[in-house]
Amino acid sequence: MSKKYVYLFSEGDASMRNLLGGKGANLCEMTKLGLPVPQGFTVTTEACIKYYEDGEKISDEILEQIYEALEKTEKLVGKKFGDPNNPFLVSVRSGARVSMPGMMDTILNLGLNDETVKGLAKLTNNERFAYDSYRRFIQMFSDVVKGIDKSKFDEIFDRIKEREGVINDADLSADALKDVVEEFKALYKKELGEEFPQDPKNQLIEAIEAVFRSWNNPRAIVYRRLNDIPGDWGTAVNVQAMVFGNMGDDSGTGVAFTRDPSTGENRLYGEYLMNAQGEDVVAGIRTPEPISKLQEVKPELYKQFVEITQKLEDHYRDMQDIEFTIERGKLYILQTRSGKRTATAAIKIAVDMVNEGKITKEEALLRVEPKQLDTLLHPTFNPDALKSAEPIAKGLPASPGAATGRIYFSAESAVEASERGEKVILVRVETSPEDIEGMHVAEGILTGRGGMTSHAAVVARGMGRCCVAGCHDIQINEAEKYFIAQGKKYKEGDFISLDGNTGYVYGEAIETQIPTVTGDFATFMGWADEVRTLKVRTNADTPRDAAQAVEFGAEGIGLCRTEHMFFEEDRIPAMREMIVSRTEEQRRKALAKLLPIQKADFKGIYEAMEGRPVTVRLLDPPLHEFLPHNEKDIKALADQMDMSFEELKGIVDSLQEFNPMLGHRGCRLAVTYPEIAEMQARAIIEAAIEVNQEKGYNIVPEIMVPLVGEVKELEYVKAAIDKAAKAVMEETGVEIEYLVGTMVEVPRAALTADEIAKEAAFFSFGTNDMTQMTFGFSRDDAAKFLDDYYDKGIFEFDPFSRIDQVGVGKLMETAVKLGTSTRPDIHLGICGEHGGDPSSIEFCHKIGLDYVSCSPFRVPIARLAAAQAAIVTKEGK
Amino acid sequence: MSKKYVYLFSEGDASMRNLLGGKGANLCEMTKLGLPVPQGFTVTTEACIKYYEDGEKISDEILEQIYEALEKTEKLVGKKFGDPNNPFLVSVRSGARVSMPGMMDTILNLGLNDETVKGLAKLTNNERFAYDSYRRFIQMFSDVVKGIDKSKFDEIFDRIKEREGVINDADLSADALKDVVEEFKALYKKELGEEFPQDPKNQLIEAIEAVFRSWNNPRAIVYRRLNDIPGDWGTAVNVQAMVFGNMGDDSGTGVAFTRDPSTGENRLYGEYLMNAQGEDVVAGIRTPEPISKLQEVKPELYKQFVEITQKLEDHYRDMQDIEFTIERGKLYILQTRSGKRTATAAIKIAVDMVNEGKITKEEALLRVEPKQLDTLLHPTFNPDALKSAEPIAKGLPASPGAATGRIYFSAESAVEASERGEKVILVRVETSPEDIEGMHVAEGILTGRGGMTSHAAVVARGMGRCCVAGCHDIQINEAEKYFIAQGKKYKEGDFISLDGNTGYVYGEAIETQIPTVTGDFATFMGWADEVRTLKVRTNADTPRDAAQAVEFGAEGIGLCRTEHMFFEEDRIPAMREMIVSRTEEQRRKALAKLLPIQKADFKGIYEAMEGRPVTVRLLDPPLHEFLPHNEKDIKALADQMDMSFEELKGIVDSLQEFNPMLGHRGCRLAVTYPEIAEMQARAIIEAAIEVNQEKGYNIVPEIMVPLVGEVKELEYVKAAIDKAAKAVMEETGVEIEYLVGTMVEVPRAALTADEIAKEAAFFSFGTNDMTQMTFGFSRDDAAKFLDDYYDKGIFEFDPFSRIDQVGVGKLMETAVKLGTSTRPDIHLGICGEHGGDPSSIEFCHKIGLDYVSCSPFRVPIARLAAAQAAIVTKEGK
Repeated sequence: MSKKYVYLFSEGDASMRNLLGGKGANLCEMTKLGLPVPQGFTVTTEACIKYYEDGEKISDEILEQIYEALEKTEKLVGKKFGDPNNPFLVSVRSGARVSMPGMMDTILNLGLNDETVKGLAKLTNNERFAYDSYRRFIQMFSDVVKGIDKSKFDEIFDRIKEREGVINDADLSADALKDVVEEFKALYKKELGEEFPQDPKNQLIEAIEAVFRSWNNPRAIVYRRLNDIPGDWGTAVNVQAMVFGNMGDDSGTGVAFTRDPSTGENRLYGEYLMNAQGEDVVAGIRTPEPISKLQEVKPELYKQFVEITQKLEDHYRDMQDIEFTIERGKLYILQTRSGKRTATAAIKIAVDMVNEGKITKEEALLRVEPKQLDTLLHPTFNPDALKSAEPIAKGLPASPGAATGRIYFSAESAVEASERGEKVILVRVETSPEDIEGMHVAEGILTGRGGMTSHAAVVARGMGRCCVAGCHDIQINEAEKYFIAQGKKYKEGDFISLDGNTGYVYGEAIETQIPTVTGDFATFMGWADEVRTLKVRTNADTPRDAAQAVEFGAEGIGLCRTEHMFFEEDRIPAMREMIVSRTEEQRRKALAKLLPIQKADFKGIYEAMEGRPVTVRLLDPPLHEFLPHNEKDIKALADQMDMSFEELKGIVDSLQEFNPMLGHRGCRLAVTYPEIAEMQARAIIEAAIEVNQEKGYNIVPEIMVPLVGEVKELEYVKAAIDKAAKAVMEETGVEIEYLVGTMVEVPRAALTADEIAKEAAFFSFGTNDMTQMTFGFSRDDAAKFLDDYYDKGIFEFDPFSRIDQVGVGKLMETAVKLGTSTRPDIHLGICGEHGGDPSSIEFCHKIGLDYVSCSPFRVPIARLAAAQAAIVTKEGK
Repeated sequence: MSKKYVYLFSEGDASMRNLLGGKGANLCEMTKLGLPVPQGFTVTTEACIKYYEDGEKISDEILEQIYEALEKTEKLVGKKFGDPNNPFLVSVRSGARVSMPGMMDTILNLGLNDETVKGLAKLTNNERFAYDSYRRFIQMFSDVVKGIDKSKFDEIFDRIKEREGVINDADLSADALKDVVEEFKALYKKELGEEFPQDPKNQLIEAIEAVFRSWNNPRAIVYRRLNDIPGDWGTAVNVQAMVFGNMGDDSGTGVAFTRDPSTGENRLYGEYLMNAQGEDVVAGIRTPEPISKLQEVKPELYKQFVEITQKLEDHYRDMQDIEFTIERGKLYILQTRSGKRTATAAIKIAVDMVNEGKITKEEALLRVEPKQLDTLLHPTFNPDALKSAEPIAKGLPASPGAATGRIYFSAESAVEASERGEKVILVRVETSPEDIEGMHVAEGILTGRGGMTSHAAVVARGMGRCCVAGCHDIQINEAEKYFIAQGKKYKEGDFISLDGNTGYVYGEAIETQIPTVTGDFATFMGWADEVRTLKVRTNADTPRDAAQAVEFGAEGIGLCRTEHMFFEEDRIPAMREMIVSRTEEQRRKALAKLLPIQKADFKGIYEAMEGRPVTVRLLDPPLHEFLPHNEKDIKALADQMDMSFEELKGIVDSLQEFNPMLGHRGCRLAVTYPEIAEMQARAIIEAAIEVNQEKGYNIVPEIMVPLVGEVKELEYVKAAIDKAAKAVMEETGVEIEYLVGTMVEVPRAALTADEIAKEAAFFSFGTNDMTQMTFGFSRDDAAKFLDDYYDKGIFEFDPFSRIDQVGVGKLMETAVKLGTSTRPDIHLGICGEHGGDPSSIEFCHKIGLDYVSCSPFRVPIARLAAAQAAIVTKEGK
C-alpha cells in the first residue's frame, strides 16, 4: 500500500507534529476539539523530503492524494475549485516541525481566476472585495511562486491610486481594482511570457511546490543555522479554506496570546484589525487595536473567543499564540501554537503554571529555551546614567532589555559595522526576513512602523534582542541613512540607546549594567540546580569576572587563562624581557619579576571564588604574540630593553611562524622553557597557601597543561610543576594538595587518552582547538569560506558554536572511554566556548562529563541546559 | 627467586640477543662453539632498564650478581682483581640489541691501579707496556666515566713527548710513561677533588654505570632516532678478560669481514695492526695492513683465523664482522656480528647465498635494509662530465656512490648549510660520534685520516653516504676552514666532488646521473615482487618523474599534484588571472586558457605511465601561494594584468591567511569555485580519451579530491566533476570509466570514513597533513622545537618521517575499518611521504592498504619493504 502523504484536518492530531508540522498538527487537534477551524488538509513533511529526493518534483502518487483530499474538502465546505457560482478559495501555508516565523511564504485567496472572481463578487455582493482579493492573490502568487519582484506590482498599484486621487487602499473603487488586476496580469505575462494561470488546480500545485522550495531559500537556511534546526526535516504544507476578515466592518482578523508574551502576566494579550486580512496585521502596515477593545465592540464574540483561548491553553498546558478571523460576524480560529515569549515571560509563565498546578517543575524547566536567558543577563541602563538622559522618542516596548550602539539603516551595513567591532542599533522603517542577519548582530532594533506582533517585534523577542517597534515619533530615511527626531538629524554611525522595556529612545550612548538573578528567575534556576547532575564552572581570568560568575551561580573556575595577565601595560615589559632572554639564567631573572605579579593575580581570583575549585592553565599562546611587529614599535622596545634594533628584530623574526595555531605554543613552550612552568606553578601554589591561611579555605589548585598530544609531554611538564610545588612546600613548611591535569584539544590526545590519563588527574576538553584540528581549518581563516558552506548546504551549523558530534564528538567520546579505562575517577570537563551552548551541554552530559565551563554570562544558560539534559536523558528522549 | 641479571658467557647463546645485547649473545654463542673467546660475563639489558627505573642506581641485587659472576670468571681465568702478583684486567663494553657503532663508550685495562700495574710489569716483564696500559686506562676512565675532557690528557701526553724528544707514542720510555701516569692522576684529582679510584671493584661498577648512562647520551639518542631504535630497549654491558694486542711484535689486533663489505665479493676482507690495541685500529690513528698480509707474516695463525671466520659465517648464515686479537702469538676472537655492508654488497651477498644454497629467497629479502637501497639509486657521475674532470686527490673508497657539493669543515656548519638548501660535502681530519648529524645531512664525507674501518667509513656505509676516507693527499685545516690539494686552497663553500667507488676527489662540481636496476639488483627486486602483496605506486607530477618511477618499478601514480603545473613561467599568468577574477565569468575565461595546458600535462603523464593507473589530485594549495607578496612584484603583476596596484594589493591582502595550513585550500577551493574542479576534470577526462585512442590504452582516470572532512564536501565537488565528465563524453561521443575518490588527511575524514566511503571509490591517506593535524603542529613550525623533544626523550622519532602508529595510525585504522564497512571493495592507498618509509610501509601492509605511493627514488625501497612486510606478517613476527 502506498504511503499516506496527505491528511485531512480531521485525520490528524497534535502528536503528529513531525509529520504534519506544528501548524498542521494543531489545526488537526483543534478540529478534533470541535473548535471553529476552516476545513482543509495538510501535505506532510515526508512529501517535502520526497519532493527533494525526486529532483524537486511532486510525484504522481502525492499529486493524486492531494487531489483526493481537495475533493473531500470541497464536499465538506460545499464549494468547488473553479466553480464560478460558488468558488472554493484556499490559503496555502508552510508549517515545519517548529515554527519558523517569516521564513516561509504564504499565499491567500488561491482559486481566484477571471471567472471565479466574478462569482465571488456576485456571491458576496461585493465586487470591490472580490477584485481586491484577486489583485492580492496575483501579487502574492507572482512574488512567492514565480519570483517576480513585488515592488513592480506596488508601482502599478501606487500609480493607479494616484490616478484615482486615492490615499487609502480601501478607498479604491471596484473599477479601479479591475484595472489593477488587468495591469497585474499584463505584468505577469510580460515577465514570464505566459498568461497568469487560470486553472485553480495548477495554481495549487505550483503553490505547494513553492512552499517546498522555500524550505531551502537562503533566509530559511540562515534561520535554521541560527536556531539549530536540521535541514532534513522538511516542511509540511497546509491548504485551508479561506475565510475573510476583509469582507466589511463586520469582519476582522487578529492575533492573541493567552498570557502577556513580554512580561508573562496572566491576561489575554493581542491585537486585531477590522476589515483586514491577516497579512495586514502581521506585516504591521496598519497599526492595530488592542484585543481588549474587542470586548467593547463585539462583547459576545469576545466572550466566545476568550473561552476558546482558555480551552486551548488548558489543553496544551502552555501559553498559546492564536490567530483568528471574523468573517461577517462569525469567529474562526486559523492557528494555535505555543507562543514565543521573552525570557522574563517564559520564566514567569513556567513558575506560575507550576504554582497553578498545571505543570511539573521538570516540565517548567523544559519550557524555557536556555539561550533565551541571555536576555535576562543583558545590560540594563545604569540608573544614574539614565537620570540625566532625555528620551527623544517613544515607540512600542516590543522586546525587553537595554541597548546602546551606533545606528545603521540596512542589515548589510549593520553586519559590516559589527564585523568592525562596533555595537550596532539597526534602524528600519519596518523589518522583513531579509533583515534577519542584521538583527542578529545588532544590540537592538528600532522600527518606525508595526505593532507588538510585527515581524521586528516577533523576531527580536525570539532572538533576545532589545526592540522598540512602531516608533512614529521619528522620520526614517533609509536611502539617505538618517532619521529625524524632535527636529534633529541622527546620521549613520551616531549613538542612540533603546529601552525595550519602556519603548523610550535616547539620542546618546547610555552606560548599561548587569542584572542579578532574583525573584521568579532565582526560583526557576533553583529548580534547575535541583535537577542537574552536570556542574557548571566558568572561564574567568580576573577577580571581577570570577565574582560575576559566582553571582550567576558558577561552582568553580574551569579555565583561568594566564596569558591575559601578561598583556597589561605594567607587566608586558617583564614578559618581553623573559622572551628575548638568550640564556636560561636571564630568563629566570625576568621570570622572578613576573612571579609576584602572577601570585597576586591568583590570590585575587582565589579570594573571589571563596574556596571553590580553580583550574589554572599554564601559558598557552606563542611567544611572538607578546612582541611588537612593526619597525617603530620594535625600535621603541629595543631602546627600552637596551638592545640593538637588529638584534631584537632578529628575535622577533625568528619567532615568526607559518601557522601560529600549529606552532610553538601550549605545553611545547614548557618543554623548551620548563622554568616558565616552574614559575607559574610556584605562583599558583604560593597563592593558594597564603589564601588558605588568610581565609581559612581549603583550596586544591588544579594546574592544567595545555596542548598535550603525547603523554611524555605531560610527564615532562608535570615534573617541572612538581619540582616547584615541592620547593614551595619545603620553603613554607606547609603541605598542600594540588592536581595536575591536561587540556584534551589535540586529536592525538584523545586518541591516546588512556596513556595520558595515567599522568592526568583531570581532562578538560578544549573544543575550540579540537574543532580546528579535527576539521583542519582555523576559525579565523574559515570565516572566509564557511558562508559558501552554509549556502551550498554542506554545513548546517557553525561547528565553533555547537559541538560537531559526528566528528569532534567522536574524539571526545573516545577520550572519555580511554581516559576512564586507565583512571576510572578522572575528572572530566569542557572549557571550550561550546561549554555555554545548550545542545553541546546536552552532549557533554550524555558522554559523562562532570562539568562544563563557560563565560560568566553563560553560566545561567549552562545551568538550565544541564538541567534539561538531565531531564531529557532520564526520560530517554 | 630473584631475576637473573648477569650471565657468564658460558650461560647464554645467540637467541638471547634481546636480553644480552647482540655482542653479549654472540660472545656466548662463540663460547658455546668452542672458539677462543676470552672469559667474561654480560650484565643484561633488563639491568639497564632497572637502573633507570631505580633512579639511575644499580640495585644491591644486581651488584651481588655482578660480584658473583666476577668471582666465577676470576676462577676460570686464574687471576684475581687487585692481585698485585697476578692481576685480573677486564674490558667493559656496551652491547645493545642492535649494533650502535661508536655510540657507546668502551673502557679497556680496567683493574689496573698503582699496585697491579707493578704486578703486570713484573708478570709481562714489560714495564713500558704496563704503564702504557695504565695511562690509557686512566684517560679512558676519566673521559668516559667522569666526563673529564680527554684533550686535557692529550696536552700532558704531548708535553711529555716533547720533553722526551719523542715523536711516536711507542718510543716513550717506561719512566716517561710513569710520569704520564702521575700527571694523569694529578689532573684527575684536580678536576674531581678526589684520588683516582684504586679499588678495581669500584672501577668496575662505575664503568658499568657509565655504560648504562651512555644509553641516553645525546649521540645515542640521535642515532636511535635516525635508525628507528626504541629508547626503552636499554643496553647490556660486557665484562671480558683483557687480552693484549700491544704486548710486542708477536701481538696484534684486527678486524675482518667474511666477505667484502663494499662489493659483496666472497673473500676475506679486513685489516690488522701488530703491537696495537683495538682502539688504534678503529680510531684510524695508524693506517693498518690488509688482512691478506697476515698470511705472509703468520701463515699458521692466518689459517686458524680463516677457518674460524668460515665457521662463523656458516654458523650464522650471514656475512660476519669479526674482531680479533693476537696476544703473544695466540689468537682470540673478541666479537662477531653480522657485518654492516653497502647496499651493493648486501644484495650481492644475499643473491650469492641463495645461489650457494645457504639461505632461502625470503631470508635473502630480509637481509637487506630497504633504506639502504637508497645508495644504489643515488647519482653516479655523468661519464661525459667526468671525462673532462681531473682528480685533485685520491683516498680510500670507503663508501660507494658519487657526490657533489660545497665543502664544510664542521658538522654544525654542514647542518646549517643543508638547512639553507645547499648540497654539502663534510670534510674532516677524522670523524667522531659528534659528527653524526653533519654526516647525515651531507652528500658525501671526505676524511684525511683513517682506514676502511675507521669511524667515518663504517658510519658512512651504514648511512649510505658516499665517503672517501684517509685521503693523505690533502692538508686539512679545520680551524681555518680550508684544505690544500696540489698547492691549491679549497675554502668553505667551494664545490668539490667525491667518487666513493674509486676514492677520487675532484675540485669542482660534476654532473651526476641516476643508475638503473640491473644484474643482482634486478634479480633481488624480482624476488621482492614475487613475495609482496602491497602494490607500489609513485608520486609524480611530470612525465619525466613518471618515466623514472616506471624504470624503478612503479605500478601506477598514486599522487599527481596539479598545482606544480601552474607555477611554471608560461602558465602562472593565466593562473593569476583566474585568481584575481571578480566574477565567475572572468574566472571561467581564465580557466579556459589553463585547460589546454592541463590537458597536455595529463597526456604526457598518461603516455609515460603506458596505461598504468594514474590518480590526479585536484588543486590543493591556498590561492595566495600563486600571487606575489612584495610591493615590487605586485606592482609588476598589476601592470601586466592591467589593474591598479591598490586593487591587486587589496586582492593579495584579502587572500592572506593566519594559518595557511588550516585555510582556504583543498576541496574548499572547489566548493567556492566549482568551475576550477570542472576545468580540471575536463582536462583529465579529455586527455584520457585522447591517449586511449592514440595508444590503445584503457586508462581509467582516478580523480582525487583533497582535504575532505565532511561527506557533503565530496558530494558537492563530485557533482562538479561528474558534470564536466558527462559534458566531455557527450561532446566526444566516447564513454570512459573514471573514479572519484578522496584524500583522507583531515582527522574528521577518518572519523567519518563510513559516510565518506559511500561517495568515494578510493581513499588515499595524506599522512603528511594528517600528522600535522593529529599532533596539532605544522612541519615547518615544529622544526623549531622538535630538537627539544628528542633531547628530552619526549619523541623518539620524527613523525613526519615515520608514521606515528599510536595516534595517526589509529586514525588510519579507524578510516580503513569504517570505510570498508560501507564500501567493502574501496581501494586504499597512502600518498604521504611515509609511503616511502619501510616501517610505515609495514604498518600499511598490516592495516590492509592496497598500495603505497612514494617518490620515484623510493620505489625500489618500497618494493623491498612491502616484500619484507609480507614475509614478516606471514611468519607472524
